[in-house]
Amino acid sequence: MDKLYIIKIGGNVIDQEPKLERFLKAFSELEGRKILVHGGGKLATQLAAQMNIPQQMVDGRRITDGETLKVVTMVYAGYINKTIVARLQALSCNAIGLSGADGNVMTAHKRINAAIDYGFAGDMDAVHGNLLTELLRKGLSPVLAPITHDGRGQLLNTNADTIAQEVAKEMSRSYETILIYSFEKNGVLKDPEKDDSVIPVINPEQYRQLKHAGIVSGGMIPKLDNAFAALQQGVSQLIIGNAETLTDLITGKAGTIIRND
Amino acid sequence: MDKLYIIKIGGNVIDQEPKLERFLKAFSELEGRKILVHGGGKLATQLAAQMNIPQQMVDGRRITDGETLKVVTMVYAGYINKTIVARLQALSCNAIGLSGADGNVMTAHKRINAAIDYGFAGDMDAVHGNLLTELLRKGLSPVLAPITHDGRGQLLNTNADTIAQEVAKEMSRSYETILIYSFEKNGVLKDPEKDDSVIPVINPEQYRQLKHAGIVSGGMIPKLDNAFAALQQGVSQLIIGNAETLTDLITGKAGTIIRND
Repeated sequence: MDKLYIIKIGGNVIDQEPKLERFLKAFSELEGRKILVHGGGKLATQLAAQMNIPQQMVDGRRITDGETLKVVTMVYAGYINKTIVARLQALSCNAIGLSGADGNVMTAHKRINAAIDYGFAGDMDAVHGNLLTELLRKGLSPVLAPITHDGRGQLLNTNADTIAQEVAKEMSRSYETILIYSFEKNGVLKDPEKDDSVIPVINPEQYRQLKHAGIVSGGMIPKLDNAFAALQQGVSQLIIGNAETLTDLITGKAGTIIRND
Repeated sequence: MDKLYIIKIGGNVIDQEPKLERFLKAFSELEGRKILVHGGGKLATQLAAQMNIPQQMVDGRRITDGETLKVVTMVYAGYINKTIVARLQALSCNAIGLSGADGNVMTAHKRINAAIDYGFAGDMDAVHGNLLTELLRKGLSPVLAPITHDGRGQLLNTNADTIAQEVAKEMSRSYETILIYSFEKNGVLKDPEKDDSVIPVINPEQYRQLKHAGIVSGGMIPKLDNAFAALQQGVSQLIIGNAETLTDLITGKAGTIIRND
């Protein structure tokens, strides 16, 4: 099977121009088939503030009311997606930006939660990989925005980490998939204060120990839970690390490798 | 050669929900290959006002400064494009939204004008039809936003009428193209006050007479000039009429047919 890189970049990278530039250059230079999944960053929050739309967060998740859905659709699927695509084109990478509605690539349903109404937040139902495969075969690199649809005309705001995982899982049927979660940190750190304390490899046994010792905590726990789940669902390799060192993440010179053995 | 419908909808249709709904339904029911090109509407102007970005118009064209480019990218390529795509998906039409940067489908250059600096307004250079053809072959319907790029990382705000014309011209190499300019009026009117005074057919000789008599004037002149140019550039059929009567426009029961003979 051919290799396929699925690379998620976090919002903090998008917000910082020199970091984004270095990432896009490395992404464009990466040989072989590749899909980019991007998050949102601070732009949506800024725009909502400019438009006087109050933002409500519950457990780090945005409550997506109708006006907020408009904002995230504009910012994620519009400004960020098209800016990234145009810049990749300038770097000779034939990128194509897609939301989940485009070609019906990703469907989701409105989150069901008895206690909290998350509004137009979408939990993933399916990735329809055929179009992605066709585009990859033609040498195109899909750039996925974290906006999906429910197939009944409703756009939905969807977590970009989950999109990357679900796309990787689906594409594992046709490719040897390498899933990379890239963000502003160098990997999973032993000491969050020390950028160079990267744990090079984590397997399930080590993960248990790291959680027990409190070294891995907070937002890193769902990220790692998802990482192990992805490996069980067919993803070949999973790497977490700094978006600015993308090339080194791929060659194993940087970042944290998540392993199932 | 197979038929291909290229349908442009004007901004006024996008702004009015019942009109848009009727148009999208008719578009989704249209059999055969089809491309939708949409304009902007009032949303960009409204958003710019909400964000306190002053808008400057010269001869009906928006001066696109950096902040305004951000607004039109968000509104046209983001909100309007994805909303239309999601709604077409709900109507079982497998739509895929694209800006010119996506798959390098449409390139343009920053408008050169010694007297007026239009900012990030783009004049079309080329339509790269291969990807559009591939998507059409797979049963997908491209939905094009009026945002292009210059190939060097710059997005550009581009006139949707021109996009429709250039796409139709390029696609005429592989298809029998029918170009439809649909908007809120019933066609080219003899009397602008009377909705039912549609001129059913206009050929170059009649066009000269209509201009001479002052019946065709203002914004209709560049539209008709472009229409005749498109016919000379390989477009098979050109129809101007009401977006709400799309089916009748195609069967010749409504609208104005522009003819070169």
